[in-house]
Amino acid sequence: MKHLLSTRDLSTDDIVSIMAMADHMAEINSRAVPKVPALRGRTIASVFFEDSTRTRLSFETAATRLSAEVMTFTASSSSVNKGESLRDTIETLSAMGVDAFVVRHKSSGAPQQITQWTDASVVNAGDGWHQHPTQGLLDAYTITRNFNELNSMNGRTVAIVGDIKHSRVARSDIDIFTRLGAKVVLVAPAAFLPSTLDGWGVSTADSLDDVIGVVDVVYMLRIQRERIDAAQMPSLREYSSLFALTPERAARMQSHALLLHPGPINRGVEMIVDPSLVPGSRILQQVTNGISIRMAVLFSLLGGDATATLSNGADA
Amino acid sequence: MKHLLSTRDLSTDDIVSIMAMADHMAEINSRAVPKVPALRGRTIASVFFEDSTRTRLSFETAATRLSAEVMTFTASSSSVNKGESLRDTIETLSAMGVDAFVVRHKSSGAPQQITQWTDASVVNAGDGWHQHPTQGLLDAYTITRNFNELNSMNGRTVAIVGDIKHSRVARSDIDIFTRLGAKVVLVAPAAFLPSTLDGWGVSTADSLDDVIGVVDVVYMLRIQRERIDAAQMPSLREYSSLFALTPERAARMQSHALLLHPGPINRGVEMIVDPSLVPGSRILQQVTNGISIRMAVLFSLLGGDATATLSNGADA
Amino acid sequence: MKHLLSTRDLSTDDIVSIMAMADHMAEINSRAVPKVPALRGRTIASVFFEDSTRTRLSFETAATRLSAEVMTFTASSSSVNKGESLRDTIETLSAMGVDAFVVRHKSSGAPQQITQWTDASVVNAGDGWHQHPTQGLLDAYTITRNFNELNSMNGRTVAIVGDIKHSRVARSDIDIFTRLGAKVVLVAPAAFLPSTLDGWGVSTADSLDDVIGVVDVVYMLRIQRERIDAAQMPSLREYSSLFALTPERAARMQSHALLLHPGPINRGVEMIVDPSLVPGSRILQQVTNGISIRMAVLFSLLGGDATATLSNGADA
Repeated sequence: MKHLLSTRDLSTDDIVSIMAMADHMAEINSRAVPKVPALRGRTIASVFFEDSTRTRLSFETAATRLSAEVMTFTASSSSVNKGESLRDTIETLSAMGVDAFVVRHKSSGAPQQITQWTDASVVNAGDGWHQHPTQGLLDAYTITRNFNELNSMNGRTVAIVGDIKHSRVARSDIDIFTRLGAKVVLVAPAAFLPSTLDGWGVSTADSLDDVIGVVDVVYMLRIQRERIDAAQMPSLREYSSLFALTPERAARMQSHALLLHPGPINRGVEMIVDPSLVPGSRILQQVTNGISIRMAVLFSLLGGDATATLSNGADA
Repeated sequence: MKHLLSTRDLSTDDIVSIMAMADHMAEINSRAVPKVPALRGRTIASVFFEDSTRTRLSFETAATRLSAEVMTFTASSSSVNKGESLRDTIETLSAMGVDAFVVRHKSSGAPQQITQWTDASVVNAGDGWHQHPTQGLLDAYTITRNFNELNSMNGRTVAIVGDIKHSRVARSDIDIFTRLGAKVVLVAPAAFLPSTLDGWGVSTADSLDDVIGVVDVVYMLRIQRERIDAAQMPSLREYSSLFALTPERAARMQSHALLLHPGPINRGVEMIVDPSLVPGSRILQQVTNGISIRMAVLFSLLGGDATATLSNGADA
Repeated sequence: MKHLLSTRDLSTDDIVSIMAMADHMAEINSRAVPKVPALRGRTIASVFFEDSTRTRLSFETAATRLSAEVMTFTASSSSVNKGESLRDTIETLSAMGVDAFVVRHKSSGAPQQITQWTDASVVNAGDGWHQHPTQGLLDAYTITRNFNELNSMNGRTVAIVGDIKHSRVARSDIDIFTRLGAKVVLVAPAAFLPSTLDGWGVSTADSLDDVIGVVDVVYMLRIQRERIDAAQMPSLREYSSLFALTPERAARMQSHALLLHPGPINRGVEMIVDPSLVPGSRILQQVTNGISIRMAVLFSLLGGDATATLSNGADA
């Protein structure tokens, strides 16, 4: 595996194998000194053309724990402002000696394009409405580890709630969850569903109340207020009345059911309940798992024959 | 000690003990390689919701010299812009594995609030008009080390000059200085004094000329021009004529007296003299001491049983 | 050598010697772990009052590969916004323990001024229209290494094309290239030439077509569109028709001739050809060489008696 651009790049075996490696990484992260020399001498550039401090810090922490050097490039501090092309930016950083690019971009397909301009590995950290593969992996990891079925989501039902149409998280989650055997039900108003769902292997529901009591996982997407206006929905209040997670709805979740959210939470929009009061909430565990999954992905891409380095666990 | 939120969290013994540890840190800082492995494997997040590059770099340098990992989160680069709540930010970073938060916030009490949302230590790096405890410590450290009375300011008089009312530096300094035995005189127009000074244990003066020739320390606060307008003071010129440090006033300082300022200096407002021409100026020494004090504070909070690590001084 | 403010600070021997040291650095950069402990314990502050992510990252990568600590200070994140003077900024950072400042500033002479306020070394990373000495060094390094005449550019002709008048790159290149024995021809409209060229030791041409087929190096400067308007030139289109590198002009370059550009490229202005299609393009090699040259410069300024440390090449 050279790049991670989409969950479609991964076979189901790859997914299972990255999650198994993340278990090793989680053990490293539990140590007094959570750092191994696995990627010593490698340079990872986080190149964020869209603001996302939490995702950037997650990847950079993962890189640091593997002893890689981190180069941070954000659009606001860059010559992108002077009209430098994406290609020139990537070629220039690449010529400085980058081994992997972690890329966030508002345009779908930008990470794919970037692979044409560099010999380095490219990890898609979110591109437009398209994909956010490490989010999909960390979500599947969180669900499988909570249900103690490490390689499968067979028999589980996941409700993904919100603006599916514009969500790269939803696309990545749906692909991974369904391949691991889960049933996925999309809960959204028609304006927030893609024009066709042919081939997605999912069902739909038009009210959260219809599914909240029967699913194993409630996955709330972040809703952007401006989308609600743009979608010509009656109003935020009416949206929330049907699709937001309220204390009443949370109380109807099955006792073993999990609550997930990719963050940042938009309180008062899709989340009217305080998630810390929902027993099944694993939202912060997702953040913790994100470090382990990103360590596993970076090591898979760059670790080469250095597996021994990882397994002996010596400090850098 | 788990957190450092206010100078009030510290007993007088704690203050003396942190200053003694800062002496060790100053020795480390004088080495060819000013770095010890004391906090290896720990992660310190600097979370600045208010711009202060100098304070942030001081803490981050302190953390690096103790071999901690640094995670930088500034409001301008963050999803705070997207309406993420302070709580979500802290919980998210905490879930990534932060051992201590260094927090600057415009609201008094924000660092205290943060302690409810994380198991990590919290250091207040300035909150509203409330407190800036490491500034108080480094100021006391600078004064005691210059006067060679390491545990006390007995018999010393310190004039604190400027906008006391809105100054967290003044609050932190007054508490520490008085507890170490100093006499503190506040020099300010009435509009720049708190409505009551009951229990502060200080005296006041309404002109710098009345005290400049008799005090041991002249502590000039930074004045924000907009405060002068808001305070309905006659004018900046009139303020300066009574309260700014001019060359003439500086010349009247006792030969052993010290000049301090927390920075950044507002030249032409509170400082009309060039501080580099004032023999008693220890303003840059404050900056140097700030690194040692912050190393001592971070080590006190996070060092655990690692005292041996510090005292052997081996390189990371 | 304490500072590097201008190419004029360097004797021709110094230039040759820095380029020879850059050869060693290039060897280090080719290793699996491109890092040596040469500057362990030293702190290098990159202080950029003008945005230039690529130059900043180049210096910071160079510093990191020599195991120095990096302190990043950019104007946008700084109290410069609060009116802190340049002097206060430098004195404050210096008091935190900086060994070298790498400075970018819009005012010519700012790095020179800074040397008065600190005992640290100062490297000019570009000041106004004045100088950008490491750019001059990396350009000469790129040319000499491509022509395999390591210490000289004797007999080579370099065309520098564009807005010479406002270019610190041109000033630095011209000084170094001519001292190494090259002939330099400036290709620019009159409005883009300095008012006098007395003592520059260069010739001029007023059309790129006149020289493109006979020179050994074509050095395209970045053109800022706003300069073209300000220079009362007929139009961007007319400028480009005479001075831009087009596919037709690139095809007329000699087969051994090199194409250089300091970046970032302004496509459609000075570069109408895609540089990746020009066989002689060494534009990305310049970027790679920039790391080696900056490592050599930082090591020359700060390495002291540590030459042994570099030559044994042990890892940090």
